[in-house]
Amino acid sequence: MRVLGVDPGLTRCGLGVVDAASSRGVTLVAFGIATTPDSESVDRRLLAIAQTVGEWLDRYMPDAVAIERVFARRDVGTVSGTMQASGVAMVEAARRGIDVGLHTPTEVKAAVTGSGNAAKDQVGRMVTRLLSLSEPPRPADAADALALAICHAWRPSTLTPQGEAATPAQKAWVEASRAAAKRGRRGWVPA
Amino acid sequence: MRVLGVDPGLTRCGLGVVDAASSRGVTLVAFGIATTPDSESVDRRLLAIAQTVGEWLDRYMPDAVAIERVFARRDVGTVSGTMQASGVAMVEAARRGIDVGLHTPTEVKAAVTGSGNAAKDQVGRMVTRLLSLSEPPRPADAADALALAICHAWRPSTLTPQGEAATPAQKAWVEASRAAAKRGRRGWVPA
Repeated sequence: MRVLGVDPGLTRCGLGVVDAASSRGVTLVAFGIATTPDSESVDRRLLAIAQTVGEWLDRYMPDAVAIERVFARRDVGTVSGTMQASGVAMVEAARRGIDVGLHTPTEVKAAVTGSGNAAKDQVGRMVTRLLSLSEPPRPADAADALALAICHAWRPSTLTPQGEAATPAQKAWVEASRAAAKRGRRGWVPA
Repeated sequence: MRVLGVDPGLTRCGLGVVDAASSRGVTLVAFGIATTPDSESVDRRLLAIAQTVGEWLDRYMPDAVAIERVFARRDVGTVSGTMQASGVAMVEAARRGIDVGLHTPTEVKAAVTGSGNAAKDQVGRMVTRLLSLSEPPRPADAADALALAICHAWRPSTLTPQGEAATPAQKAWVEASRAAAKRGRRGWVPA
């Protein structure tokens, strides 16, 4: 399956597309970022993000879109634009009938590194290794978007029929998802 | 000028259109709400809101869209959907080249009642009186959307060339806007 990952943001919105042939193999298709200047009005910046996400959806035709689940307790100064950008990306996917999955940063870290507490650069290194790249994708927002896409491709519904996690990364995914559910947050939302 | 007010929300999104012939006179054009069921996925609910806002923009062709400025410190359980709905409404306006203004609840209350601390039902009563209606618009989300539209029509740039507030409501508007600016928030954002 092909997944577009979106790391939402008003100033920099990370985008990354991967193909997942099996529960283990993932290959890079594309990555990049949508940037908007803060001299523009918020409505025009959100429109630019909507248009770029729409162009990526039309060009790469993913089976699913994975978007970071944004929590209100994140930095108050930027959370508004981040939430709005995530909503705008969701609408572009829904407009095309493409499934949307939301994943917490903890789940994404667990999926690609095996630890929900992994440092940001560790996520970048694992994305580099998993996609057999020569160097980490830059900027970091693009690497985060690729990690989101990998996380979604490896979510529990793609596990074995017995519901067993096939890899250490998948086991960590399931554990992180259960821990998040215990704290009253659903790990991911099927569209 | 014609203004569409949007009181953003995922479950109920208030919509109200007014015509403002002068700095004092306002007449009702239409009001209503967009509702989406919480059994639906967030991306499909946001798409439904985007489509309804788009239909209102195409039908009533307002000169501006006034949207409530949502703060992160509002109820954490619903702020995410509210922020996303506001972003989605902004994109629909920007897509059509229509100016967007964001107004805080304090500014809206001050604009229609003369007091930034007015109770919710007082806003409804003043909207009823200002628009010469026989009873308050229901549901309350629609009345709030109309109040937003009136607030935008009466914003400071529509005052006299000398910058004087022509009415008590406009004086209260300017005071509330200055108070908000002092607290580090811009009163309204020209698109």
